Amino acid sequence: MAGTLTQPTAKTVTTLADGRQLIYYDSGEAVPRDAVDLRPLDPPAHGSEVRLDPATGAWVTVAAHRQARTYQPPAEECPLCPSRDGRHSEIPADDYQVAVFENRFPSLAGPPAALEGADGLRVSGPGAGRCEVVCFTADHDASFADLDERRARLVLDAWTDRTAELAALPGIRQVYCFENRGAEIGVTLAHPHGQIYAFPFTTPRTARMTERAAEHRAATGRSLFDDLLAAERADGARVVLAGEHWTAFVPFAARWPYEVHLYPHRRVADLTGLDEPQRAEFPRLYLELLRRFDRLFGAGRTPYISAWHQAPAGQEDELALHLELFTIRRAADKLKFLAGVESGMDAFVNDITPEDAARRLREVAP
Amino acid sequence: MAGTLTQPTAKTVTTLADGRQLIYYDSGEAVPRDAVDLRPLDPPAHGSEVRLDPATGAWVTVAAHRQARTYQPPAEECPLCPSRDGRHSEIPADDYQVAVFENRFPSLAGPPAALEGADGLRVSGPGAGRCEVVCFTADHDASFADLDERRARLVLDAWTDRTAELAALPGIRQVYCFENRGAEIGVTLAHPHGQIYAFPFTTPRTARMTERAAEHRAATGRSLFDDLLAAERADGARVVLAGEHWTAFVPFAARWPYEVHLYPHRRVADLTGLDEPQRAEFPRLYLELLRRFDRLFGAGRTPYISAWHQAPAGQEDELALHLELFTIRRAADKLKFLAGVESGMDAFVNDITPEDAARRLREVAP
Repeated sequence: MAGTLTQPTAKTVTTLADGRQLIYYDSGEAVPRDAVDLRPLDPPAHGSEVRLDPATGAWVTVAAHRQARTYQPPAEECPLCPSRDGRHSEIPADDYQVAVFENRFPSLAGPPAALEGADGLRVSGPGAGRCEVVCFTADHDASFADLDERRARLVLDAWTDRTAELAALPGIRQVYCFENRGAEIGVTLAHPHGQIYAFPFTTPRTARMTERAAEHRAATGRSLFDDLLAAERADGARVVLAGEHWTAFVPFAARWPYEVHLYPHRRVADLTGLDEPQRAEFPRLYLELLRRFDRLFGAGRTPYISAWHQAPAGQEDELALHLELFTIRRAADKLKFLAGVESGMDAFVNDITPEDAARRLREVAP
Repeated sequence: MAGTLTQPTAKTVTTLADGRQLIYYDSGEAVPRDAVDLRPLDPPAHGSEVRLDPATGAWVTVAAHRQARTYQPPAEECPLCPSRDGRHSEIPADDYQVAVFENRFPSLAGPPAALEGADGLRVSGPGAGRCEVVCFTADHDASFADLDERRARLVLDAWTDRTAELAALPGIRQVYCFENRGAEIGVTLAHPHGQIYAFPFTTPRTARMTERAAEHRAATGRSLFDDLLAAERADGARVVLAGEHWTAFVPFAARWPYEVHLYPHRRVADLTGLDEPQRAEFPRLYLELLRRFDRLFGAGRTPYISAWHQAPAGQEDELALHLELFTIRRAADKLKFLAGVESGMDAFVNDITPEDAARRLREVAP
């Protein structure tokens, strides 16, 4: 594993009033991060469960306590702003660069325990794992695309560090760093932020990818993801952006109106495997992709999901780290809904051809 | 295969001005259905494509022409109302009971052709198949739950007849009857209606179910779906409603806030296999489920997806016909969004326990 904090980065681990961890990441010189959380907090809610769907093999998390989670609070009660002017948020400091803390309403939390369900039809266990919130700017009204490259690099370092730490927790199968942006996606807190889920199972989408990779290896002796990336780079019709170390393309069978996959040219299993040249180039390319997404529909911010695919435990030789970025917006005034065909049968219908989407995403270059 | 029109039902096959089929189903005595479509219609749009996602094995339909489809027209331009008062809709008759016609903006249409993509990474073919619209009431403001049992039985007959006919078309792998209800689901036409997709591939969700069923058969020698239904009936904690021939339960690993699966006790592969007692009982139970969904959140209609799972070609011995009914509403003022965890990783988080959902659905009995 390569080092997880590869540029000069200060990391300060602190504890919130209810015992949750809060970790500050600062670029360059260490910043004193000794502000104390003064809120009178009850212990965080717990008690989720994971259940295996016997009909599909997919794990589902049942998290009843999350019905009460914070839902679109007014800006003056934002829990992700720094604590200033007598207000106390989730982050006691009066400013921050990148701050990562355990979610107060986690879908997954705590140590693993044995699964129950001897008949194989009703297999369940505690919702073990960990859910973290990643704040990457103190500016309530900014977004990831507004960051400079130095800050984006700091976020990459934070994701990498969290991946290393969370993957090492007992019972964790997969670490998932992602960002939801926009009320259209269902974001319940307006302050820009990402999240990290440490799952006690391999997610259904990742499980299928590893199955496909194994089939491809058996049939060809080669890596599915190496072949995929090589084919897209050779074809070029769906390539959006390429650097020396990364290429972004619209996948051949894109599910979403605008969808881009960003792969490092040298395959790695997860963020901890990236080398310095890959890390150094990533911020520029990723920020450029986000800014192009915002230019697709004229004024306004494009809602998006940005999802890091990392190898689950035991699949480090097959699953290739990559980022999948997509929007549910199909036109300035229309969203892609997941109705009966998609939600009922997982059969996506995409109204925009991948080649057209790639062309548009090339056209909106600055 | 049992007969497809088992109660006295008249079926009249007609043709719209652009060559698409329109089929009327009428209960009891035949009704003259000779109204002519007088609209000057261009040929329907065509040209979709199916593509295999090499990373997941899922088929995706690319249907660029659908970006221009009819989108939330005003009620006076409703294409699903009967043709009256000088207005010409998709249904030339001035009234109807059940009318099924080929979609003017089909995601899938036409005969199958060979797939391309020798390298296995970019496999594609024409978007063969057929998409139909199922109108089950002339009343623009009604909904399925408002139908009487006789009309619901007529819809069951129409679904069954269409399943038989569409499954017999060359290249069809799976016939999918479903209904999307509510603007929250993305419904673009307010007039109540269902749809039928005849797919040239097995849908991803069904493919996983057949894989699981094969694994269960190999491990136990028994049908996965027989065992599932027996376990739920024996447990009872998640049973919502049971008749002599059908049982409705919330699945053990429900993905959606309120989700009910309705199985016939005697397993059949698809709608054409239902016998008269099963057919006779279905309307009462299904209408009751829909009405309970509408009572969950006080006044107002609950958005839902209702999805018939039928065996794909070659899996008639394993996949069991059942209906999956679910809503994306998790509270009177809140929807379940598919954000980064669900859309990025297919890992569902459900805020309502299946047992609580079942209890609520029992409580809202009349």
